[in-house]
Amino acid sequence: MTFITVPLTLYPDMFPGPLGHSMAGRALEAGVWSCAPVQIRDFATDKHRTVDDTPAGGGAGMVLKVDVLAAAIDHAAAAHPDLPILAMTPRGTPITQARVRNLSVGPGAIILCGRFEGFDERIFDARAIEQVSMGDIILSGGEMGALLLLDACIRLLPGVMGAASSGDDESFENGLLEYPHYTRPASWEGRTIPEVLRSGDHAKIAAWRKQEAQDHTRLRRPDLWERHIDARDRPASGARRKEKD
Amino acid sequence: MTFITVPLTLYPDMFPGPLGHSMAGRALEAGVWSCAPVQIRDFATDKHRTVDDTPAGGGAGMVLKVDVLAAAIDHAAAAHPDLPILAMTPRGTPITQARVRNLSVGPGAIILCGRFEGFDERIFDARAIEQVSMGDIILSGGEMGALLLLDACIRLLPGVMGAASSGDDESFENGLLEYPHYTRPASWEGRTIPEVLRSGDHAKIAAWRKQEAQDHTRLRRPDLWERHIDARDRPASGARRKEKD
Repeated sequence: MTFITVPLTLYPDMFPGPLGHSMAGRALEAGVWSCAPVQIRDFATDKHRTVDDTPAGGGAGMVLKVDVLAAAIDHAAAAHPDLPILAMTPRGTPITQARVRNLSVGPGAIILCGRFEGFDERIFDARAIEQVSMGDIILSGGEMGALLLLDACIRLLPGVMGAASSGDDESFENGLLEYPHYTRPASWEGRTIPEVLRSGDHAKIAAWRKQEAQDHTRLRRPDLWERHIDARDRPASGARRKEKD
Repeated sequence: MTFITVPLTLYPDMFPGPLGHSMAGRALEAGVWSCAPVQIRDFATDKHRTVDDTPAGGGAGMVLKVDVLAAAIDHAAAAHPDLPILAMTPRGTPITQARVRNLSVGPGAIILCGRFEGFDERIFDARAIEQVSMGDIILSGGEMGALLLLDACIRLLPGVMGAASSGDDESFENGLLEYPHYTRPASWEGRTIPEVLRSGDHAKIAAWRKQEAQDHTRLRRPDLWERHIDARDRPASGARRKEKD
């Protein structure tokens, strides 16, 4: 089953962009996923094909027109009624690996990419749209965030990653940052690989890695650490309450 | 002065990718920024041009070799001694708009893009590298994160955004999410633009927007809201203590 992606954008040429290379590119060629961007401007109704207008109440920048957006969304949703509709916006809920994993189960996603100052807010009252944020930084538009989100989903699609790297052991999958990695040479610039990793003692290695992951998370990401502790201490049914699945 | 970007990557063809379009693309053509990817594989020392090896202590996936990485970094740093070196990794510090703004002042950045399971940890002990994370999701490699980071920086370079949208009023710039936007038509599908925005009363509009930004942040991002309150209550010198500038 193909994972169907439909970016709604003013810059359809940005897709698949970097996702046309490497692992994602090979999966695209193999039909594991598809990408059919929709040009929002095609749904403008005036002869100038206007997609934006000045903000009500004044202020800098331009706002994407709700009627044009709605027409583009309705077109995509009619063709793909099963796909969830996401909008990339800094006002949204921060994306999580749990949501990425859930999305990657399929069937795909319609992704609304904003430009300018953003969307007319009424679109979110009038249509079922999940507002998603990709980190607390401001981008020139939603396209780059959409590419990032798709990259995270695509690598989890069946057959994309080798069986060897299921991803279960990676950062965020268990609520912790990942442990540090090392590979040959054993000594480099006088720096050696930690002794335990060369011991061949699998139980000791697993314990060391767990400790490293916990220590690193506590030091570098106290926010993640708090949530990890909370989830561990709460009954399973409540632990994932805050995840949007 | 050109903002110099040097991605170190196994997929140099991914650059400038989506940054070759729109605002960033025009700025690239105008010489506002430059992008000269370095192929990490060129610094492999064996005839197979090996860049990775199995993880010490066992486990899935492959690890980028520290000696090859160091050679690539040293080459780029010798050519651009003034540039900070960033590595895209989920183990890093989450990127903030404050750090983006600081980077965008220049002179640019060398950006190390990982693949596979990640970097040999010794590279971070041996070289001055800032480890940066782009949200709590796992990507197929660091390239997509680097593109996202560069997009956020480039839009802040002088002359890239119109003077009309300085960005000062946007999400995260004041520690809050942005207020909602509206534009014509005044009524759409029975939904009207909030009355206050059509009042022409600039003080009332400003007050309404501030309230909306606060309410939205408190509801959608309690984490940001807590930091906003903390920063407001602390003396100025301490307020930004946690920002990595």
